[in-house]
Amino acid sequence: MIPKKVLEEKFRNFVEDDVGQGDLTTLIVVPSGTIVEAKILAKEHGIIAGIEETSMFLESFGLQATPILTDGSEVKPDQVVLRIDGDARTLLSIERTMLNLLSRMSGIATATNRLVKKVKQAGFGTRVACTRKVAPGLSYFDKKAVRIGGGDTHRLHLDDMILIKDNHLTLIEDIKTAVKRAREAVSFSKKIEVEVSTTKEALEAVEAGADIVMLDNFSPGQAKSTVELMMKKGLRNKALVESSGKITEKNILEFAATGVDIISLGEITDSAKALDISLEIVKIKKGTT
Amino acid sequence: MIPKKVLEEKFRNFVEDDVGQGDLTTLIVVPSGTIVEAKILAKEHGIIAGIEETSMFLESFGLQATPILTDGSEVKPDQVVLRIDGDARTLLSIERTMLNLLSRMSGIATATNRLVKKVKQAGFGTRVACTRKVAPGLSYFDKKAVRIGGGDTHRLHLDDMILIKDNHLTLIEDIKTAVKRAREAVSFSKKIEVEVSTTKEALEAVEAGADIVMLDNFSPGQAKSTVELMMKKGLRNKALVESSGKITEKNILEFAATGVDIISLGEITDSAKALDISLEIVKIKKGTT
Amino acid sequence: MIPKKVLEEKFRNFVEDDVGQGDLTTLIVVPSGTIVEAKILAKEHGIIAGIEETSMFLESFGLQATPILTDGSEVKPDQVVLRIDGDARTLLSIERTMLNLLSRMSGIATATNRLVKKVKQAGFGTRVACTRKVAPGLSYFDKKAVRIGGGDTHRLHLDDMILIKDNHLTLIEDIKTAVKRAREAVSFSKKIEVEVSTTKEALEAVEAGADIVMLDNFSPGQAKSTVELMMKKGLRNKALVESSGKITEKNILEFAATGVDIISLGEITDSAKALDISLEIVKIKKGTT
Amino acid sequence: MIPKKVLEEKFRNFVEDDVGQGDLTTLIVVPSGTIVEAKILAKEHGIIAGIEETSMFLESFGLQATPILTDGSEVKPDQVVLRIDGDARTLLSIERTMLNLLSRMSGIATATNRLVKKVKQAGFGTRVACTRKVAPGLSYFDKKAVRIGGGDTHRLHLDDMILIKDNHLTLIEDIKTAVKRAREAVSFSKKIEVEVSTTKEALEAVEAGADIVMLDNFSPGQAKSTVELMMKKGLRNKALVESSGKITEKNILEFAATGVDIISLGEITDSAKALDISLEIVKIKKGTT
Amino acid sequence: MIPKKVLEEKFRNFVEDDVGQGDLTTLIVVPSGTIVEAKILAKEHGIIAGIEETSMFLESFGLQATPILTDGSEVKPDQVVLRIDGDARTLLSIERTMLNLLSRMSGIATATNRLVKKVKQAGFGTRVACTRKVAPGLSYFDKKAVRIGGGDTHRLHLDDMILIKDNHLTLIEDIKTAVKRAREAVSFSKKIEVEVSTTKEALEAVEAGADIVMLDNFSPGQAKSTVELMMKKGLRNKALVESSGKITEKNILEFAATGVDIISLGEITDSAKALDISLEIVKIKKGTT
Amino acid sequence: MIPKKVLEEKFRNFVEDDVGQGDLTTLIVVPSGTIVEAKILAKEHGIIAGIEETSMFLESFGLQATPILTDGSEVKPDQVVLRIDGDARTLLSIERTMLNLLSRMSGIATATNRLVKKVKQAGFGTRVACTRKVAPGLSYFDKKAVRIGGGDTHRLHLDDMILIKDNHLTLIEDIKTAVKRAREAVSFSKKIEVEVSTTKEALEAVEAGADIVMLDNFSPGQAKSTVELMMKKGLRNKALVESSGKITEKNILEFAATGVDIISLGEITDSAKALDISLEIVKIKKGTT
Repeated sequence: MIPKKVLEEKFRNFVEDDVGQGDLTTLIVVPSGTIVEAKILAKEHGIIAGIEETSMFLESFGLQATPILTDGSEVKPDQVVLRIDGDARTLLSIERTMLNLLSRMSGIATATNRLVKKVKQAGFGTRVACTRKVAPGLSYFDKKAVRIGGGDTHRLHLDDMILIKDNHLTLIEDIKTAVKRAREAVSFSKKIEVEVSTTKEALEAVEAGADIVMLDNFSPGQAKSTVELMMKKGLRNKALVESSGKITEKNILEFAATGVDIISLGEITDSAKALDISLEIVKIKKGTT
Repeated sequence: MIPKKVLEEKFRNFVEDDVGQGDLTTLIVVPSGTIVEAKILAKEHGIIAGIEETSMFLESFGLQATPILTDGSEVKPDQVVLRIDGDARTLLSIERTMLNLLSRMSGIATATNRLVKKVKQAGFGTRVACTRKVAPGLSYFDKKAVRIGGGDTHRLHLDDMILIKDNHLTLIEDIKTAVKRAREAVSFSKKIEVEVSTTKEALEAVEAGADIVMLDNFSPGQAKSTVELMMKKGLRNKALVESSGKITEKNILEFAATGVDIISLGEITDSAKALDISLEIVKIKKGTT
Repeated sequence: MIPKKVLEEKFRNFVEDDVGQGDLTTLIVVPSGTIVEAKILAKEHGIIAGIEETSMFLESFGLQATPILTDGSEVKPDQVVLRIDGDARTLLSIERTMLNLLSRMSGIATATNRLVKKVKQAGFGTRVACTRKVAPGLSYFDKKAVRIGGGDTHRLHLDDMILIKDNHLTLIEDIKTAVKRAREAVSFSKKIEVEVSTTKEALEAVEAGADIVMLDNFSPGQAKSTVELMMKKGLRNKALVESSGKITEKNILEFAATGVDIISLGEITDSAKALDISLEIVKIKKGTT
Repeated sequence: MIPKKVLEEKFRNFVEDDVGQGDLTTLIVVPSGTIVEAKILAKEHGIIAGIEETSMFLESFGLQATPILTDGSEVKPDQVVLRIDGDARTLLSIERTMLNLLSRMSGIATATNRLVKKVKQAGFGTRVACTRKVAPGLSYFDKKAVRIGGGDTHRLHLDDMILIKDNHLTLIEDIKTAVKRAREAVSFSKKIEVEVSTTKEALEAVEAGADIVMLDNFSPGQAKSTVELMMKKGLRNKALVESSGKITEKNILEFAATGVDIISLGEITDSAKALDISLEIVKIKKGTT
Repeated sequence: MIPKKVLEEKFRNFVEDDVGQGDLTTLIVVPSGTIVEAKILAKEHGIIAGIEETSMFLESFGLQATPILTDGSEVKPDQVVLRIDGDARTLLSIERTMLNLLSRMSGIATATNRLVKKVKQAGFGTRVACTRKVAPGLSYFDKKAVRIGGGDTHRLHLDDMILIKDNHLTLIEDIKTAVKRAREAVSFSKKIEVEVSTTKEALEAVEAGADIVMLDNFSPGQAKSTVELMMKKGLRNKALVESSGKITEKNILEFAATGVDIISLGEITDSAKALDISLEIVKIKKGTT
Repeated sequence: MIPKKVLEEKFRNFVEDDVGQGDLTTLIVVPSGTIVEAKILAKEHGIIAGIEETSMFLESFGLQATPILTDGSEVKPDQVVLRIDGDARTLLSIERTMLNLLSRMSGIATATNRLVKKVKQAGFGTRVACTRKVAPGLSYFDKKAVRIGGGDTHRLHLDDMILIKDNHLTLIEDIKTAVKRAREAVSFSKKIEVEVSTTKEALEAVEAGADIVMLDNFSPGQAKSTVELMMKKGLRNKALVESSGKITEKNILEFAATGVDIISLGEITDSAKALDISLEIVKIKKGTT
């Protein structure tokens, strides 16, 4: 929920990235002052995400937006998502950029939701989270789409939580010291997570006081036995457990069955198929003669 | 080929989008002044794209980049793409953002190249082009990745070429007038393309003097008969013909076989799977004791 | 036709360049809340350009703009161009910056139009084009003024068209290879132009497949004989011909008479006299007592 | 003397305004890694201005600049102004933008210097000043060029000095009160100037304590009699006198002869002819084979 | 009085500095569409400053601001300063940033006003001025707060006035030459001030033609004898005298008594205590059920 | 630890806020090409903070910085903090802005450290934290200074942690529901804190599952009895306890004695006295003759 005023700057930058010295075609073939009614249509099944952003986008360019659906709704082909009224030239100049954002967000929400539902319908309470594998500059939109799809946004920024990863451990090689140093140095408001590559390290991290332990590239079997060992040692309630790496739509239930709290995957943000969405001018409300 | 100085601003914005008040983990666990050698590795098969940008990115943050491969190279799992030397804290702070860009560009190049090769190996000279369906703000990178993958970049901006589309025609409804008006109004340096939805319109556009005609959502059959009719009428050499809409990796050869000059698809830029690429610290060159 | 939202950022930057910590004079001598009616007046003969931008400029600062004339109109001394209503302090703070833009654009349109008319009235169909010799940062406004004046905008950006110039040829020295390489490498959506310094090179360029050939610093005589040779060789319809360099208001008809399609000159954008335009407060609609 | 780091941002913006997605021509025809030596040449007589900015510009893009002349030097056709060494692709990408700045600044310095010399050679000590009639966004460069040409830069910003103008007086109609209010409200560090339209107002302004009085659109005769009346009344040493409006290169000496301290004109910044300057590649220092 | 449009950019930057990916708390606990009435309250005695900026700030984020007090008013605990109506989520997202600005400006105005009043009530006409010791990036707001508190803003920028300081004199060591060079080189619109460290230098500066002389770190005794010596030498009316350095609220009257025109101190801008101000939601005007 | 490249943009903005069209004084009196050695000196006792930022600042403007002390060091009057070598004109142009940042950060670190030491020396383990009451735009620098002074940085952004405050509770009025909703909606990576105004609410918040409870404006007595009640009810280990509001240097030990985990105050960031620090040119290394 970034205030509209702040998002407007991003929308302006997106349009600038595409518009060059302006939409010459529209300038030449569409008469100045033409007012139209248009609609945004889904062209395939999926979860719509970005209605709020699209509305702000349109309004910040002086167009009137009337959302028909709300973020998170399921759509089917040819379903109307949003109605637009306003200046035809402006609308056509920003059409592609606006649709690119909405299609991307909806694609991410759709991919996320498919996994979230799969896990839930199989009866698991495991959270499905994304990672920081977003498109450069689009962190806010990608993360928000994950949330709309029912996923967990994980770290929003690098300053969000302490997450000690493999490359950090290469440089220090002692989980216990690392966690201790982090606990002392970081604000009380932050959690501490450690990425581990063996069960032994997982236990070490929890014993050192980590709030969360990330099992990196563990097989479902390894994940399960780690969780069980934590239980046996009375450590299960001391920390949340996250599984990450090599998880796909196919094997996600196997991971959910291991008893971990969170499953995270990069593909829902960096490899999601854009949802097919298009804009259609419905009516000329005021032309020029 | 945007000058490095100009790209640096984009890289800085990408990092700002992620870094917040800084990489707290690295700050706390990695000692100041640690110098490392690291390598960027492909983790799967594909075409690498973004080497030049990645090098500029790293250098603009004060790290030394030594490319091992060049843009457009085929990579296989665990192949080293680029070597990095420099300050560990800085490197870890920008690692994810840098990899996100490189993975995205390589994913697009890989998807593009698969189609380009398929068409070429089937013996066709048809160009495979992308559209303006890019990630918001990433137009330059997405288009460059298409070029590296062997594709045609199509319009770079809205001011690039006159492209009269369906929504324009809704507002004017006369291809001939539209083309005429465009020819008079636009600089001699621009080409004019018309998107059409029937064979009749295609002929009309070419006769009106369009440089390129885009067959929108034509089936391979319709596209073929349109090209043949153009030949019969002596119009085939007057304009280039582009097929667009509902083209996928599966049916692309059917479209190539129709005799059109260009095939364009949105999915290579808006739905490409990111290439799996990672960073590994190889050696601590200077630590602190 | 850049969307208003995008231009606003430029207007804001222009004002910031002038305003420092604010218009101290106005702050001190004009009471807060004073509402005025004002008018923008031409002070000499010319073509007005920038009405649309000026209106957007004023409106983006919260002032009401009522254009009296449209872009491209001929004006004479003391003719009212635009009426303004709104807050006096704001108006006086942006007065100079707004007039600087309008005067510049009108000066360019006036200079352009003088040449365009001269050529047309002499019965020639030759296009008069500007070059990329614009004021730094003002490309959009300078090019738009040329268009309003009836001129051709030529390349809008460096990525607009392939234009192989003298300094490029110094580095490669073979027109044929250069054109061939460009044709293969560049998108189908782009034209290719070659700048040549001899008749021989001109023919070489056209034969190599250039869409346009630019005769650089050719005398009218050379230009004419080049065009004639192209005709004789059946190449005249293969490419457009542009004359550039050492063309002035004085000799422009000699060049138009050579049969070239386009005449381009830098002076209409980089050396045009600003049109004298001023702002006058007409009425105090609401003062403070 | 804005620090280089701050100017770099302006240079980057100028290049962005022109470069779009990059110099496609250069990318395609000039091999990567080509290193050249080039020179910037004057093509006509004038005063060169902008050497310092051009050097910073080039260096901020990674090119080596070796100035041959200093700002303010007289140049003649084909005289070398600056030598450049570095990457050919980068140089060609920024060539036009860089030359546009240098040509503009040199044109302004040349126009200014012609007037300054004329006044000085006629034996007058009158200062020749510019106004705020600069190109939008180019205030720093236009003002600096005036200074290099020997002119007075007048107000740099709207917050620079109190200057009560005609439109202000319309809103208050009492010079005495205005000056008094300004003196109380403004910092001791600021001067106060009043623009007047009659001799009576001029005396009123000086008596009210203005530091400078601007005779707006006074004929040389009016200006002279105003100065004489000030002397008679013992007011001549109380304030500086500036003549402004309808002053041209032709009549400037008549104004200088009136005894005013400063003569200001807008045309040296808003209507100066750009100085013809070009770039030539001299040598390929490292090509590719 | 920077135009609202220009200030909005600063407000947006301030919010961006704080908001990250948005106010998660508000997003989660406050229903979308909640409309509230709120008030800004002073929590202690002081001078309020920043009402105008706060109103613009709120309005630029789409909230309605109704000022109850005007800038410069004295406030007491629990006094209402401004009323706000609008969207609860937006208001809560910018609350802290807005209050931080208002508290800072009010703190500076309060500190300034205390000194200004003290000097005035002791019967002195001495101006109390701030310096350029402002918070980085907040020059406009800090200076405006000083003005609201009744103080003199001194130089607004480095290009405002010539002020030859100790570090300059280290590099040239001759006041006379420095002042002479400055007078010739700088525009007639600028004043010249010299910072001196001895009475001898003070006289030297005035004799050289400085408009203002700054007595740096002079004791009240030294300042007084310097002023007296200037009188004796008939130099007192040639220049203004400013005392600066080691002046505090405690000893300010001793400096005022020396006869200097201006007293300047850094602490009113860089060390002022923020005024305690808070925001309270008064009424829910529209909730969601 | 924001990467240097990102901070440079902030430094540039700070300088732009002050420099206008440049340091005219330095331009006029200091010869171009003068190279100096200078030192930054503390002028009073305190904790130095901002050495790292100052070094990056200087280096980004092309000056060489040699830190003598490290962040967090105690300084005494006339102690050298950092040595600078480089171009005199550049140094003098940025001197004030650079010192303003360093003085502010050091002032905050000094104020923080005084409290941190006081608490520690009295034998308490309570953390001293700042709030989000920073100078607008300076969040990073203010928070970093707190850390250097030994304080806890609390929330860095609004998206950092869930913190349900009084104004939120006005809109919902049920702590239990609020905490529950937050826990479900927010990522597993975030903590949840609730601001309460009574002991009853404190218990309610902890029972609802809050990670931290903030006792707002509790007296030391109230805070103590709340902590004791939590112990009695077995809730003390379920959540951290923070005291906030009306805490000053005077009464901080009374709060520390209550057994709360964290004490937070706004005055260390919004009302800290700037540390007196100055720059002195030591030696002219290269002048001009």
